[in-house]
Amino acid sequence: MSASADRSLAQRLLDGDNRALARAISLVENDDPAGWELVRELYPQTGRAAMVGFTGPPGVGKSTLIAALTRAVREAGKDVAVLSIDPSSPFTQGALLGDRIRLAEHFLDPGVFIRSMANRGALGGLSEAALQAALLMDAAGNDVVFLETVGVGQADVDVIDHADTIVLVLQPGSGDSIQALKAGVMEIPDVIVVNKADHPLTDTMVREIRGVLALGPKEEGQWDIPIVRTDAARGDGVEELVERLDAHRAHIEAEGTLLERRRRNLRNEVLALATVRLRRQLEAAIREDADVKELLDEVVSRRLDPASAASSILERHDGGDDDDR
Amino acid sequence: MSASADRSLAQRLLDGDNRALARAISLVENDDPAGWELVRELYPQTGRAAMVGFTGPPGVGKSTLIAALTRAVREAGKDVAVLSIDPSSPFTQGALLGDRIRLAEHFLDPGVFIRSMANRGALGGLSEAALQAALLMDAAGNDVVFLETVGVGQADVDVIDHADTIVLVLQPGSGDSIQALKAGVMEIPDVIVVNKADHPLTDTMVREIRGVLALGPKEEGQWDIPIVRTDAARGDGVEELVERLDAHRAHIEAEGTLLERRRRNLRNEVLALATVRLRRQLEAAIREDADVKELLDEVVSRRLDPASAASSILERHDGGDDDDR
Repeated sequence: MSASADRSLAQRLLDGDNRALARAISLVENDDPAGWELVRELYPQTGRAAMVGFTGPPGVGKSTLIAALTRAVREAGKDVAVLSIDPSSPFTQGALLGDRIRLAEHFLDPGVFIRSMANRGALGGLSEAALQAALLMDAAGNDVVFLETVGVGQADVDVIDHADTIVLVLQPGSGDSIQALKAGVMEIPDVIVVNKADHPLTDTMVREIRGVLALGPKEEGQWDIPIVRTDAARGDGVEELVERLDAHRAHIEAEGTLLERRRRNLRNEVLALATVRLRRQLEAAIREDADVKELLDEVVSRRLDPASAASSILERHDGGDDDDR
Repeated sequence: MSASADRSLAQRLLDGDNRALARAISLVENDDPAGWELVRELYPQTGRAAMVGFTGPPGVGKSTLIAALTRAVREAGKDVAVLSIDPSSPFTQGALLGDRIRLAEHFLDPGVFIRSMANRGALGGLSEAALQAALLMDAAGNDVVFLETVGVGQADVDVIDHADTIVLVLQPGSGDSIQALKAGVMEIPDVIVVNKADHPLTDTMVREIRGVLALGPKEEGQWDIPIVRTDAARGDGVEELVERLDAHRAHIEAEGTLLERRRRNLRNEVLALATVRLRRQLEAAIREDADVKELLDEVVSRRLDPASAASSILERHDGGDDDDR
């Protein structure tokens, strides 16, 4: 509770104490000022972990794949943290609980830290907390941080964008995802995994992906996106995937693109944090300000257009706090 | 160019001149102040069109379905506008050009207005322009406005959210989408269409959708989401879909939820417009301000954490303009 207790929390976290890490992440998740303070204090100790993000439609086996990868990375003597972003469902709260069970074999291993965060649906709210949690996992000395999200929604992509290496996991028959990739709805990943590769449509799938990738621009020294076939439940292909992930990391380190990526990602993060705060301030202003409510009523009754209302609110908001009273 | 020329543009638009509408949308799309001024002027004439949004993965036949619906609505003597949101692809610029061709039969009909807008990828940038375009289509006297987006990305959902009726289009086998629906990644639509319903897996698909919907909360007087089977290319099921769309509109009008929805949507639009502007101001500040660049360098070198940098930027930005010089 006190500053000294929090200092010791930071110290325990740096020493690799998973309970301290869990508590620190809870503080961040609950938007507790002590959580932000912790991140501020620990930030200089970050930047060492390899951040690997996994995206792809629900049900393709991302959690099983991450469990298998975790096994492989642990065998190499490295510490691992897994951060899963669960979208909250209007239908079934906690529908993805089953995913956690796939990681159960690692629950008792002190070298593995597993945490889920729920999607709150608010603009940037989750990305904000998730990115802070990832920083804490990094500071705690984990060599690898796996970020897992569900679906191809924009909010998910935001989190994944902060990974050093982005893995897209598909399964034979996920034609929707290939279309999304082709249409540019989805970010281009660094590594593509076709999981459940014992399926008879695997070859077709790989061919389709190659077709989409062939449409992309080719540049000198550019990373050649590998397509890795895995059967995560049986561990097939996981070794090759580990090699490809290491190769990608070596590539971006050698080309200097790791630093470039992180610079861009951190710039976007700062901007996103600032925007979320501004939006919160705005929302508070809209909630509390009677004049703003009147403005909105005018918009609803079609007397004032939305853009003009936005301008008026911004004007009020800008000078507001000091001048009004 | 002059104010009087713009006034006449507004008048011509109100008279239902499609060329005037096209020009007005271009002004909005190019972020021309004259475009915003037009929307401001015409806004009191909006709110009469039925706004119907279509979402769903690429390739399920949304454009073909909209072409068939347009035919049906035209036969009822109503004017139609179609706004398609094309995601710009890093691979293939204009990959969705083919979609426009599906609407070709309507190109020469003065009672049909068709327009595509490209996804610029910027935060809110496209939704902003697309919503203004939809307002202009409404003001031009169109009885129905069809909003079409691609994919299940957040940016798309934002636009669709402003429809009075949301239609999710699927095809047999789009399991990814059912999973996304189940996981809550996707908004719950008002009407679900299973297109290409001659496919042998159609019954399975309909059963799966029913299963997902059955998980949802049931409330008294609640709209019962219909699942309509169509074969849009042959026109099968389109008549039923038109009936369902009309029924949904009658339902939300009777229940008073249409006004409620529009109030919520307009509130969100005002907030989104204000946030986009704030973010632009921030981005400009970050670009131009040498001190802000220094802050970002400190973040990259791990001396200053992202949240503290965001706070510093907001503080500078808040008092900045007036105090600095």
